[in-house]
Amino acid sequence: MRTYLECVACFLRQALDASRMATDDPAIHERVLRATLQLAADMPFDRPPPWMGQQIHRLLREATGNPDPYRKIKQDSNDLALSLYPDLHKRVNSSLNPLATAVSLAIAGNVIDFGCLTNLTQDEIRQAMEDALHTSLDTTAVEKLRRRAAAARDILYLADNAGEIVFDRLLIEQLPCARMTLVVRGAPVINDATRTDAEVAGLSALVPVIDNGSDAPGTILESCSASFQARFAQSDLVIAKGQGNYETLSGDHSHTIFLFMAKCPVAAADAGCRVGERVIVHDRPHCSR
Amino acid sequence: MRTYLECVACFLRQALDASRMATDDPAIHERVLRATLQLAADMPFDRPPPWMGQQIHRLLREATGNPDPYRKIKQDSNDLALSLYPDLHKRVNSSLNPLATAVSLAIAGNVIDFGCLTNLTQDEIRQAMEDALHTSLDTTAVEKLRRRAAAARDILYLADNAGEIVFDRLLIEQLPCARMTLVVRGAPVINDATRTDAEVAGLSALVPVIDNGSDAPGTILESCSASFQARFAQSDLVIAKGQGNYETLSGDHSHTIFLFMAKCPVAAADAGCRVGERVIVHDRPHCSR
Repeated sequence: MRTYLECVACFLRQALDASRMATDDPAIHERVLRATLQLAADMPFDRPPPWMGQQIHRLLREATGNPDPYRKIKQDSNDLALSLYPDLHKRVNSSLNPLATAVSLAIAGNVIDFGCLTNLTQDEIRQAMEDALHTSLDTTAVEKLRRRAAAARDILYLADNAGEIVFDRLLIEQLPCARMTLVVRGAPVINDATRTDAEVAGLSALVPVIDNGSDAPGTILESCSASFQARFAQSDLVIAKGQGNYETLSGDHSHTIFLFMAKCPVAAADAGCRVGERVIVHDRPHCSR
Repeated sequence: MRTYLECVACFLRQALDASRMATDDPAIHERVLRATLQLAADMPFDRPPPWMGQQIHRLLREATGNPDPYRKIKQDSNDLALSLYPDLHKRVNSSLNPLATAVSLAIAGNVIDFGCLTNLTQDEIRQAMEDALHTSLDTTAVEKLRRRAAAARDILYLADNAGEIVFDRLLIEQLPCARMTLVVRGAPVINDATRTDAEVAGLSALVPVIDNGSDAPGTILESCSASFQARFAQSDLVIAKGQGNYETLSGDHSHTIFLFMAKCPVAAADAGCRVGERVIVHDRPHCSR
């Protein structure tokens, strides 16, 4: 997905929100904001929005000297998700269609996105999970996911955020784990999941975990390591979680299923759905509810 | 009022909204947006937000070759306001406190601000005027305005927007017209009132009308003509209508009464009131309801 002109004002809001979250120093807030303006003035709009997210959060880490400003937020999200996990695990397994319930919960977990939703509360996360148990997704799209996963020899599951990755476990447990590899970011960026979060979520014991070698809040292939690029090319099914992975991979890759919650009007319009909607997109950017 | 870091994302939104209102050409939208980013990267944040508004709308007029992109919007606002004027005029004169009613209506007219509220509808304007008839302002602040106007020898009334200027007439009729001069912008910018609008509103027959020689959406004194600057310095009371005049004159001038509707969180916080609130500020930026 390209960067739309509407994204630009949102980049500035994100740069300011992130700076304020990371430090109380107003000189750093201003420095990061001005540097973001300068970058945006010349940015190639054919790049996806997470390209700018990557630049902003590099600036922020450099300006604050803090390599992981969202560490506490990630821990809190993991703790909350782990406290909800046992009950949700039971509810998945006792439901009429465990895969559909797990998909619904995993996508609802994508609400934990501190790039888009700076002021997200723990109550809102709990509510999103509860809502996911009571509203169903398009069963055709879920069944297509089931068939594609059953037929695939080599599945990559691209995780998105900390906390959310615990809810991904509910879905991964319903899929053919023996043929699946979990992929996390190569370095901290916003609240995106890294190896630590996969470990904390209990996923390292379930599937092999690799990282993509990149600090982009999405999957920008040219920013990823050569080994991940090779792994991506050889897999025959990619399950890409989250809006950042949709924004960076949609349109280009025919072996990808996108699972995400649309959190801004631009991504929602691109995917043909409404803001707040949980979507399953098979390969192409269209909305399959 | 200085430019706050929050204003920057809003500048970008305004640049994009204004470009799209002025032309369907996406190349112009992108050109104006990039130029705004470049300007904002280096802007002095001790300048008020309308300083950037002035730059953005110069860029827009230059890029489109249209010296007055809001002409139709201004005409429509004037037409609507003139259609409401006769009834409102009667309601002012039959009210228990005609000055208070006129102040309330004049401030409500400040909703007609296409810089802040791009998608404002005629129904919303009608509703704002109706609301103003049923909710009262702080009577102490109104009585202080009455006393100060009665005591002043030379009153400048700084108009803000087209359409709104018709509602200003309701207030001007309640004030000592013989000692008052109406001031409009020196050139078109957004939907701000110029000499044409004062004429259409029927104000030219009531009070002398001058322009400030500037194309800023506010009153940036150093951008105004020398003759206006002299006139401003010699007056002993300035009644400044609208958020743009508040943003450019507040804090610096002890002989000014600000009447406006707070339309963004930044201006509302600066004035100590809520978004959507109609405020009277005597001289200093504090909220006197």
